[in-house]
Formats: sequence, C-alpha cells, structure tokens
Amino acid sequence: MHPFAKKTADSVASLGEEKLIAAIRRWLGSASPRAPFGIGDDCAVLPASRRAQLITVDPVIYPRHFDDAVPPRDVGAKLLKRNLSDLAAMGGRPTAAVLALTLDARTSLVWLEQFYRGLAATARRYQVPIVGGDIAQADGTVAASLTLLGEAAGARVVTRTGARRGDWIYVTGELGASLPTRHHVTFTPRLAEGAWLARHAAVRAMMDLSDGLAKDLHALTPPGAKPALDGAALPLRRTADLRGALTDGEDYELVFALAARTDRQKFAAAWRRAFPHTRLTCLGQFVSTTASAPGTLNLADFRGYEHLR
Amino acid sequence: MHPFAKKTADSVASLGEEKLIAAIRRWLGSASPRAPFGIGDDCAVLPASRRAQLITVDPVIYPRHFDDAVPPRDVGAKLLKRNLSDLAAMGGRPTAAVLALTLDARTSLVWLEQFYRGLAATARRYQVPIVGGDIAQADGTVAASLTLLGEAAGARVVTRTGARRGDWIYVTGELGASLPTRHHVTFTPRLAEGAWLARHAAVRAMMDLSDGLAKDLHALTPPGAKPALDGAALPLRRTADLRGALTDGEDYELVFALAARTDRQKFAAAWRRAFPHTRLTCLGQFVSTTASAPGTLNLADFRGYEHLR
Repeated sequence: MHPFAKKTADSVASLGEEKLIAAIRRWLGSASPRAPFGIGDDCAVLPASRRAQLITVDPVIYPRHFDDAVPPRDVGAKLLKRNLSDLAAMGGRPTAAVLALTLDARTSLVWLEQFYRGLAATARRYQVPIVGGDIAQADGTVAASLTLLGEAAGARVVTRTGARRGDWIYVTGELGASLPTRHHVTFTPRLAEGAWLARHAAVRAMMDLSDGLAKDLHALTPPGAKPALDGAALPLRRTADLRGALTDGEDYELVFALAARTDRQKFAAAWRRAFPHTRLTCLGQFVSTTASAPGTLNLADFRGYEHLR
Repeated sequence: MHPFAKKTADSVASLGEEKLIAAIRRWLGSASPRAPFGIGDDCAVLPASRRAQLITVDPVIYPRHFDDAVPPRDVGAKLLKRNLSDLAAMGGRPTAAVLALTLDARTSLVWLEQFYRGLAATARRYQVPIVGGDIAQADGTVAASLTLLGEAAGARVVTRTGARRGDWIYVTGELGASLPTRHHVTFTPRLAEGAWLARHAAVRAMMDLSDGLAKDLHALTPPGAKPALDGAALPLRRTADLRGALTDGEDYELVFALAARTDRQKFAAAWRRAFPHTRLTCLGQFVSTTASAPGTLNLADFRGYEHLR
C-alpha cells in the first residue's frame, strides 16, 4: 500500500495536529498509557528501575526499509521487532518505547492507522508500553524512529565483547533469503532465547544479526582471532544459498560465543528442552589469526550489507 | 551552510558506514562514553535509577527546522536544547541521550562534523552522555531525532495537569520574535528554573512554550476555567509585538500555575534571589469560563503554530 493519499481528505493534512494525535491515541489503545505515564505531557514519566537499563534506537524509512508491497501493519510491527531484537541480543526485556514520526502532509490516514495498529498489536504482545513520541512534517517521506528502553531480564547483560580464542560460535534459527521469504517482517525477536543465554555464564558474548553473518561476526571476534566456520554447517533458510546466508542481512537471529571448555552436549540438550522449536547450530570456532584452518570459509570473500554506499 | 556536498569526496558516501561511525565517535569525544555504556553494542547499558524517570523525543529536520542560514553547530546544539527544555518543564535533569540520524549519501562531512561538535559541546555543558544512536540513509533529507532520558531533579515531577481556577499564571523570560532574534538557537533551556519550581508545592502545573502561548496555554488550563491574561503584562522579547509574543512559537520558556493563595511577593522575592537574571512575569489568572473578564486578552483571536497544515 502506498503511504501517500491521492486526495487531501484522505491525508493527515485533513485532520491537523491535534485531531491526528487524538486518532493516534485511539489507534494505539491499551498499548499507550495515559499521561503523565504516556502521551500528552512534555515528557513521559517512567518508574524507577532497580536493574541495569538498556536503550536502543532503530528506524524504518520509506522507501528504504519498506515499499508499497509491505502492508503498513507489518511496517509498524517490524519497527518494534527490530528494536526488540537488539534488546534480545543483550539478554534484555523491554520496559517502554517512544516513537518519532516524520511524515509528508499527504500521508494517507488509512496507511497511518494500519501502521499504528500493527505497532500497537506488537507492543501488546511483547508488553511494551508506547509512552510518548513526536510528529514532525517533512516533504516526500514517511519515516519512523523508535527508541526502546529495557532492562536486564536476569542478573547479567551480555555484550559483544568477551569472546576468546577457542570459543565456539553458535547461531539461532536459520540464515539468508530474509526478503523473499518475508522473514524480515514475520520474524520473532529472540527475547526468550536471549534471556536464557544470558543466564549461562559460558555464553561470553552475543549480538543479533542484521547485516549478514559475514559482516556482523567481526564485532564478536576477539583480538588476535578469526572465525573458522564450517560452510556445510550453516543453517540455510528455505531458498537461501551459502552466499545469501552470509550476506543477505535482516536475519534477526542471535550469534554468540560459547566458552571453549563447555560441555556442548549438555548445553545443546538444555537448549532443546527450553526451545524445542528453535534451531541452534554450532558454526565453528574462533581460532588464532595465524592458525591455518583448512576447509573453513574465507569470510573476506563475502560482504554483508554496506550502508551509505 | 548547505548540508549537501557538491563532490562525492566531501560527502558521507566517501567514508562508508564503518569509518563514518568512527568519525562520529571522534567528533563526540568525551560526550560519548565507551561501549557497553555508549556507542558500539546492540544496546547501550545505563545504570539503574532510584528516582522516577522521564523520557522525551524531538527532531530537527532540514529544511523545516533549520535552513542553510543556521550554522550546523547550532543545529546540533538546538536539537539537544529542545529536548532539555521538555525535561525542564517537568522539573527534571538529564541522564542520557540517543540520536537517530537519517541522511542523504551526499551529506557534507564538514556539515556533519560541525553538527556533531555542536551537539557534543552542548552535551558536555549539560552533562548529558550521548550513549547511542543509529544512522540510516534516505534521499534528499537530513533529519535527526534525539531521545532524551532524565529523572526528577528533586522529590517531585510537575505535569501539565493540576492547575485550578483562581491559580496565577506565570511565565519565565520573554516571548515572541524567536526567529529574527535567533533566540530559537541561542536560548538556554530552563533546567535550573524548572528544578527550583518543582521544589515549590505551590507550583501546581508547568509546561514549556514551543508553539506560542495562545496555543500552548490550553494544555495547562483546568476544566471549567479559562485564562484571563493582561496583554500589557506580556514580557515582549526585543522586536516582538503582542501578536508575536502569543503566536511566534519556539520561546522555550516555562509557563506555570501558582496556587491562588500563595504569598506572591514572597515567591517573587525568592525567585529573584535564586535567578536574579531571569525575568518572571505574572500574566493573569485562571478564571471560571462563565466569568466576565473585562480588559483581558481573547486568546481565540490568536493562533499558535499549526503543525501538519
């Protein structure tokens, strides 16, 4: 669905700011608490938090992150889920979100309502109150940027730093072909899995995959090491090939380093009991940069998604 | 300064994402802590907070909120100060900020560096760590949306709700002509004043002025009441007339309701001791909607800034 209306009567300009905000509050419904804990004051008030907090921000922009083929409900859902995936990658759970919306005065009210209803449904599903936001006008665009707040789900937050040489490299789910399979809108952020992994001290470092394993894995690789990956082990999403699994991006899966001396059979069995429907794959190991690793993938042959090029 | 470069070599496209992020970290300098407490992981980690928290989000978008005449340093500073003004309006102090940037690949590196240096200088001045962000590409625009986190500066947060009939209406500073006087970029967010006012229980409701007093004051007006304002009392910024003071917008001053039975002389004296250089003006009172208020302004004759029209 195209985000711009043909007639002014069908656009946000027909409402003006005040009525538009009233409509948005209606569309968000129970996903948006009342002021001062939600929309309607200079700031939203949030409860104090006893745990370490987490914050992340990610946008969706027309036509870069979605086009006319993506239903607006899915755009709203994806915006929140992209951010939830970042939270999952640190073992976090969500506490609140704010949304900054930039839109052309021609933006279709039907499009916008569906966008907000998709966002609200996802917010209710993951219990994320939408506590505030801002609407600004800009010509020729519809862009939404969501800031998500969270806290550690357990005692510990897992960062990208901490992997060591010898650690095993694991990935959840499957990789590649995110666009043709619509995984990029249908995915489930790995919140439960991330929280579970953070409870295991043997999980030394973790991140979520957004630009493709070949590019993203660098951020997890410890100094003096390189990943030695078994190409045959890569869990391919249907229709994906090896290159796609390494470079397509938008996987929203977790990749993590498991301490070298872990009892991997016991770990895998515990995972299967906790997540019988979520695949877990050992892709290989971090080895010394000077080690020869015959039969492993040369990631330099593959490039993930390059922004701003 | 125009935000787009004429030559690719002078644009963000010449760097690509990774080098651009490295440059941004350099430009932000000490305003941006190291990961996981700053830029570089899936989320930024923030300390637990023992007080009620506040969150707000506001953007600056080219060419709507700034044009080629505004130095990019001022754009970066204004982005943060707009949000600080929202925090001031509730009696808050800042704790952290994240920035979502959307830019055309042609965006000039010089422009962007100055923008970030202006943001960083303001962040250091108000002790706001810039803990994270996102950069996304979009054609034909430069837009930045900043989410600001804060907490109550004292025991209490002041909302827009709580004024009663009979309460006095006060405003800080001066109103009108924000654009021609460059007040919209040179203003100081009223953080100290907001925190001071929040400590006074007689201050029943408060907000900051962004779209002009005539429009914004509705949000502070209790049910069954209307503001009776003395036009002659309005503190005019230099070059501003009465209409401008009511409708120009971008004042970033605080307007608040003071309980009817307050000793106003004592209150004004305490204010002068605390803020000898900041004007404080009583504009009038909230009166019953059925009261006749001869000699007062009819705000319906004035309209503040209307968004999305």
